[in-house]
Amino acid sequence: MTNSFSAFQQKLTDIAQLESAIALLNWDKDVLMPPKGSGPRAAMLSYLAGELHDKVVSPEFRGLLGEAKAAADAGRLAPGERAIVREVWRDVSREEKLPLEFVKELAQVTSEAYHVWMDARAKKDFDLFAPHLAKIVALKRREAQLVGFQGSPYDALLDTFEPYATAPEIAGALGDLKNFLVPFIVKIRNAKAKVSRDVVAGDFDIEKQKAFCARAAKQIGYDFGAGRLDVSAHPFSTSFHPLDSRITTRYSRSEFMESISGVIHETGHALYEQGLPAAHFGTPLAEAVSLGIHESQSRLWENMVGKSRPFWIYFYPLLQREFPAALQNVSLDTFYRSINTVEPSFIRVESDEVTYNLHIILRFEIEKALIEDNLEVEELPVVWNSKMKELLQLDVPDDSLGVLQDVHWSGGMIGYFPTYSLGNLYSAQFFAAAKRDIPTLDEQMARGEFGALLKWLREKIHVHGKFYSAQELAKNATGEALNSKHFAAYITAKYSEIYEL
Amino acid sequence: MTNSFSAFQQKLTDIAQLESAIALLNWDKDVLMPPKGSGPRAAMLSYLAGELHDKVVSPEFRGLLGEAKAAADAGRLAPGERAIVREVWRDVSREEKLPLEFVKELAQVTSEAYHVWMDARAKKDFDLFAPHLAKIVALKRREAQLVGFQGSPYDALLDTFEPYATAPEIAGALGDLKNFLVPFIVKIRNAKAKVSRDVVAGDFDIEKQKAFCARAAKQIGYDFGAGRLDVSAHPFSTSFHPLDSRITTRYSRSEFMESISGVIHETGHALYEQGLPAAHFGTPLAEAVSLGIHESQSRLWENMVGKSRPFWIYFYPLLQREFPAALQNVSLDTFYRSINTVEPSFIRVESDEVTYNLHIILRFEIEKALIEDNLEVEELPVVWNSKMKELLQLDVPDDSLGVLQDVHWSGGMIGYFPTYSLGNLYSAQFFAAAKRDIPTLDEQMARGEFGALLKWLREKIHVHGKFYSAQELAKNATGEALNSKHFAAYITAKYSEIYEL
Repeated sequence: MTNSFSAFQQKLTDIAQLESAIALLNWDKDVLMPPKGSGPRAAMLSYLAGELHDKVVSPEFRGLLGEAKAAADAGRLAPGERAIVREVWRDVSREEKLPLEFVKELAQVTSEAYHVWMDARAKKDFDLFAPHLAKIVALKRREAQLVGFQGSPYDALLDTFEPYATAPEIAGALGDLKNFLVPFIVKIRNAKAKVSRDVVAGDFDIEKQKAFCARAAKQIGYDFGAGRLDVSAHPFSTSFHPLDSRITTRYSRSEFMESISGVIHETGHALYEQGLPAAHFGTPLAEAVSLGIHESQSRLWENMVGKSRPFWIYFYPLLQREFPAALQNVSLDTFYRSINTVEPSFIRVESDEVTYNLHIILRFEIEKALIEDNLEVEELPVVWNSKMKELLQLDVPDDSLGVLQDVHWSGGMIGYFPTYSLGNLYSAQFFAAAKRDIPTLDEQMARGEFGALLKWLREKIHVHGKFYSAQELAKNATGEALNSKHFAAYITAKYSEIYEL
Repeated sequence: MTNSFSAFQQKLTDIAQLESAIALLNWDKDVLMPPKGSGPRAAMLSYLAGELHDKVVSPEFRGLLGEAKAAADAGRLAPGERAIVREVWRDVSREEKLPLEFVKELAQVTSEAYHVWMDARAKKDFDLFAPHLAKIVALKRREAQLVGFQGSPYDALLDTFEPYATAPEIAGALGDLKNFLVPFIVKIRNAKAKVSRDVVAGDFDIEKQKAFCARAAKQIGYDFGAGRLDVSAHPFSTSFHPLDSRITTRYSRSEFMESISGVIHETGHALYEQGLPAAHFGTPLAEAVSLGIHESQSRLWENMVGKSRPFWIYFYPLLQREFPAALQNVSLDTFYRSINTVEPSFIRVESDEVTYNLHIILRFEIEKALIEDNLEVEELPVVWNSKMKELLQLDVPDDSLGVLQDVHWSGGMIGYFPTYSLGNLYSAQFFAAAKRDIPTLDEQMARGEFGALLKWLREKIHVHGKFYSAQELAKNATGEALNSKHFAAYITAKYSEIYEL
């Protein structure tokens, strides 16, 4: 390692320290901060964001990055160092293509659009939001032009969230998925088996829920010595370092599966963060590959593990012991089927794992068409509603239950949605490979043992940070590129049994 | 306000944002952080401390400060602006007199000394610590020479903690106090009245203690909308902004008064911080005057209010309701006398409000003599023990209960101790003035009403920030400079009644 590369790494670590401090201030804001602290906290965060920006654009940092790039190009660096340079260079190059004027305009337009979206959703009036969304789409098209792309301009936007992925790849995977899901959901709808969420109902003490959630998180491998579980308005996970990666959830006295599933989901994210190599803190080698891979970890634990029969063979007796009034007369089988009820919903975030991806496919098709200039913003409600009919056989009653339900577009986050489905597809692909490599995984889970699975994920995914791209990582871990057939096979097997198809 | 003064103020605010971020990271470290996060947190804090240092010594900041000083000297600034410049100039001038080499050496010596002190205290072996303390004393003497002083070199050290105070002033006040306390404690010792802590004993549920402490803090005026009460190993208060000033305490099932007194003490500090003018955040106008004045606020609420009969006329029935098993057969009078038991102790932090100041007088006399070169470090245990005998009639059994009990000197904090007694003296002086201005204060407190007292403190002390020096502030608020007779009068009246002297 050259002196200048070491100086470059030091700068990266400095930047990461500031980013972690900001993340902690945000965590505190969302979890603990007294309400009157919000104004001062916003000022503090704004100041630190400016400091961070100054560091990243400083001539000193750019100079060191340039030297590191030259060293990498001349073959003078080790593979890990080359990966660091590749990823930092990639981020910085993208940023450099966006003039300050453009960045400021986008920030202003989205800040305004966010408030208008809140209002429009409350009033169920898409027309209020439409001109703002049109501005955002125009700016994001311009962003794609500024950044540059080879195939679709959508690629240039996707790239921020899912590096190296392309629209055709995703269109292919999601197209296959759609072809599988739409008829499969019709089969479920017509199934004779009775499955309903309502069989499990009661009043679930919050303190007992907390203890159960913490127990579950710990048992699947979350290290409370390097993390915390707290309460916030919306569940999230955040990480300041692999040795301090925290999760939050919320509790409802009636909807106890919301907190359990939520905690297992966030634990999945946090297990990834806790598994990143601390020795490389500050560099891309200690960063998650992509949003899709991150989501694959949360969804694997939430659904493939946390809604599986083996998981509940172990945990259900414990749950029954905590909540005898509600659960003593509910069999494991009834409980398992209940928490896996498939029920098309207007709302993405309330959807089960079968119908969920159709919500994403709908959004992906729409936002891709918007960016490729094949769709006008004004047409959105009509297109949205007709797609909901086509995919889920639902008639959207108003736009608050339709095109206005998600915050993403108001914030300029176009290209984000597909990462949710990539997460689902990767999760099934990883889980299938893990099951192949650990033949007794089901038996282990039924005994409450998750160590072998976590070890597999650590070795195949977590420990590599951003050394590989998502595609390379999937090939190394599973022997093949992204393939939606694993998700289809998982869904088919699980729900054919539940719905007796 | 000139443009350059406004730029100067902006820089001060920037610096304060960073300081507040550091304070929050420290709060999180002491209250919530998972144990494995300590290494990464130390690195984060060290990085941010470096950033802060860079800001303070930057030519840009120094240039703006120079311009502000020139404007102040030329009479071009308003009084508040002049006070800001006066205080910042004061701090920066002091720092500039200390060469970087010196600062680094002191940091290294104290860092090592801290670990040796921990070890020496555990082993009850002063000889281990003595050479390190000798180095620290030599460095602090050098610091005084570098900073400069008029009378005693001790003034130059005191100045960091109690700006504008001098050794003769403090020696005078503490000397008067000693002359009062030593015979007064003999009187108490010989009193016929039986007063004992042990009459109040039991098992006090922690959750009930928490609720009671929060209730008390709220009732005396702590704004939970701009603060929090949490648990930590050692009670403390910290402030990121007047709108986010937090307190902590610890709970013991047997020692319930420890948590109640601790919370009221920290609430006193936090009430001061919450009362500083938010509009001036970042400038000395939104900073506490001195450690002595800060301590006067905590001690006023902890002792003059929180251990007074009127306070407990209101709160004791509430406490009895929470802990009937322990308290139902204990009268208010017995309870009041019990929590005000006077009992000489080897340990400063365990001392009652009567004997406490003798611990400080002892330390002040010793550290002043050390810095004025009238005492060798090797003589400390003998001097300490003979003073304990003289002041409190106690025979110190070993140095862990004597000269090794406090952390301060190992960290180079010489000149800090007297601020504790200044806090006690100022608290009595302020409280006497407040009682004069609010003739029904006792009756109000007995009804659980503390608003008039808090308003008095806000108007006379909190709202002024560092506009006045401690001495000026005391004169404005009470009509006279620091005078220990108020404390003596308070103690005489209160304990003559309790001990029937």
